[in-house]
Amino acid sequence: MALIVQKYGGTSMGSVERIEHVAHKVASWRQQGHQVIVVVSAMSGETDRLLKLAKSIDPRGSKREFDQIAATGEQVTIGLLALALGKLGVQARSYTGWQVPIRTDDAHMKARIQDIDAQRLRNDCEAGIVPVVAGFQGICADNSVATLGRGGSDTTGVAIAAALKADECQIYTDVDGVYTTDPRVEPKARRLDRITFEEMLELASLGSKVLQIRSVEFAGKYKVPLRVLSTFVEGPGTLITLEDNKMEEPLISGIAFNRDEAQVTMTGVPDRPGIAAAILGPVGDANIEVDMIVQNVGGDGATDFTFTVHRNDYERALEVMRKVADELGAVGVSGATDIVKVSLVGVGMRSHAGIASQMFKSLASAGINIRMISTSEIKISVVIDEMYLELAVRTLHKAFGLEEAAA
Amino acid sequence: MALIVQKYGGTSMGSVERIEHVAHKVASWRQQGHQVIVVVSAMSGETDRLLKLAKSIDPRGSKREFDQIAATGEQVTIGLLALALGKLGVQARSYTGWQVPIRTDDAHMKARIQDIDAQRLRNDCEAGIVPVVAGFQGICADNSVATLGRGGSDTTGVAIAAALKADECQIYTDVDGVYTTDPRVEPKARRLDRITFEEMLELASLGSKVLQIRSVEFAGKYKVPLRVLSTFVEGPGTLITLEDNKMEEPLISGIAFNRDEAQVTMTGVPDRPGIAAAILGPVGDANIEVDMIVQNVGGDGATDFTFTVHRNDYERALEVMRKVADELGAVGVSGATDIVKVSLVGVGMRSHAGIASQMFKSLASAGINIRMISTSEIKISVVIDEMYLELAVRTLHKAFGLEEAAA
Repeated sequence: MALIVQKYGGTSMGSVERIEHVAHKVASWRQQGHQVIVVVSAMSGETDRLLKLAKSIDPRGSKREFDQIAATGEQVTIGLLALALGKLGVQARSYTGWQVPIRTDDAHMKARIQDIDAQRLRNDCEAGIVPVVAGFQGICADNSVATLGRGGSDTTGVAIAAALKADECQIYTDVDGVYTTDPRVEPKARRLDRITFEEMLELASLGSKVLQIRSVEFAGKYKVPLRVLSTFVEGPGTLITLEDNKMEEPLISGIAFNRDEAQVTMTGVPDRPGIAAAILGPVGDANIEVDMIVQNVGGDGATDFTFTVHRNDYERALEVMRKVADELGAVGVSGATDIVKVSLVGVGMRSHAGIASQMFKSLASAGINIRMISTSEIKISVVIDEMYLELAVRTLHKAFGLEEAAA
Repeated sequence: MALIVQKYGGTSMGSVERIEHVAHKVASWRQQGHQVIVVVSAMSGETDRLLKLAKSIDPRGSKREFDQIAATGEQVTIGLLALALGKLGVQARSYTGWQVPIRTDDAHMKARIQDIDAQRLRNDCEAGIVPVVAGFQGICADNSVATLGRGGSDTTGVAIAAALKADECQIYTDVDGVYTTDPRVEPKARRLDRITFEEMLELASLGSKVLQIRSVEFAGKYKVPLRVLSTFVEGPGTLITLEDNKMEEPLISGIAFNRDEAQVTMTGVPDRPGIAAAILGPVGDANIEVDMIVQNVGGDGATDFTFTVHRNDYERALEVMRKVADELGAVGVSGATDIVKVSLVGVGMRSHAGIASQMFKSLASAGINIRMISTSEIKISVVIDEMYLELAVRTLHKAFGLEEAAA
């Protein structure tokens, strides 16, 4: 018998029929003798509807009131799921954030969980009752309702699992696990049975938007085994765990990519101390987020400086850079939006030299030119022309043996 | 400067535009220097929508979960109104039932208020903040959300006014006050400036459905001056107060009527002790509510026994009565559905003889036959044929001088 926290997202709660489907899933885990705590999101689209209503009155109004309104979405679904479980003969009881209580700081609309009182949930589990808890919300010190921001229900699930020292936190979604890459780009992409928290963080931040990043960080910090699986298709999903030295680690876990970036380059920058700050300071002041940053070793007292930004910020970034180039006496500013970033991710590359050169060799043999390179301990990213995205992903997927094993 | 509790119903909260209209009304009271606490209902139709959703899963499910779901309707409107007030520069803060807190018993879906902690509301008022409180809901001892049942927002308003010893509780609705009778039947009906709690109770229970009866009882018990007025039309409305000996009391305040009743008569009932209980017991056992009950003094050891029930219960009541008649050896059972009850209401009639005879004389002069009569201290009711309803109301309205005074 295990204690399992299950989190169901907005799509899984999207209609009465789907809520009844979720109730059947929960009932089957109970029948197998497990203790289950369920965390749910609002019906898909409901949080947006509520926030739109609030914004139609005053888009810059009190965030406390936005939270008061938005938190009702989950209050409806916890009640509905508890009713659906009751109808199946499963004892259940709904809890809003304040009823648990889940205590947060007072940063409305992006609050952070500070503390969870696990007593009521534990008592329910021991009495054979399934607590159904509202995700995405808590209560702050002055008794106001606070929400955790987008995707906060994942974090609620992990935090409850941590507080109760649950055996596993299962995140039910509309995909059946984490894949080696996007199956729409490489049909041979394979579902991973396991992946480490670090790899998941790199994959998530690079575009494989399966889980909210904060919930993965949280799960890693509190060592909560996390499993991503589908509400609609039966299967084991993907288990996200701490690095396990005993398991045979693959070199590479997956290939992520990001089509939303643009590249900005300043050429002929005088190569002296403080130059990076002089360039990036004004970018930060303009509220533009920078992803990759590359500076080559300079010759002749000058260097080239390149960084990537979100495509939406490209024009503004160019404008800022032209001013900075004038001030610094740089040669010029150029850029491109028809680029993509492709990244290899894997904890295995830590202990294996040669992954980078194998990657570059594979891309070269496919005739793909590399514009930028950036590496971290468990990730190698390259920027290439956008037209080569599919070719690059498939070439690397094959080169590193990520395909589905033949049956 | 007065402390005023204002309650706005579902129609007043029916859209963003209407909520903004209400915000302007509240702002204008604040500008006049008054302290204001606002109590609101859910948007019209929203509570029904939520309960329908819950019932679609399990109509006989846990009432606690029904309350959890239904209470979200007001949580949305308090947030929206607080935002609308903020936009007008009026400091405001929303409160759900549990945030006040408003403590109730645990009779879910028809809970009764036990206690209101007035401290936070009082602090807000003194700090120049308008608290916007969710009507219809509270929190019970085990921290569950409980709703007060239909119309409960009126009760919330009165209870808060009582707890804070407010100068007035204003109930905003879609009519501009209490009238001498229904203006659709008698266009000369006049809005009353004042009326007593007792009169209001008699008028409300007889069909002038302006206020929820429980809230009037509550206001009378705690001596909270209650004012009914319109959200949409400016005007003083009707003040409902304790009887005031100093004011010139009119004989009659108003004329109520009820078209929903049906009459059931058992003839030739053996006239012996316990006969009323023998007849009405089985009616109560069948869950049929009885309104008027009339038994004439019997002659020859037999009597006739008549009562009225809701028309929906008429057929069932006849069935029950036929069985009872057999058992008691009564002569027969008859009835009618094409009847109405018309009632004169007024505290003034206590000290004036002759009201009843004046009423019967007026009806007789209009050729209207009286089928039943029943009287209480401040009310005289007659049952007549339904076809005479308008004639009877207009005749009595004129006979007792209730018309609008000429300008």
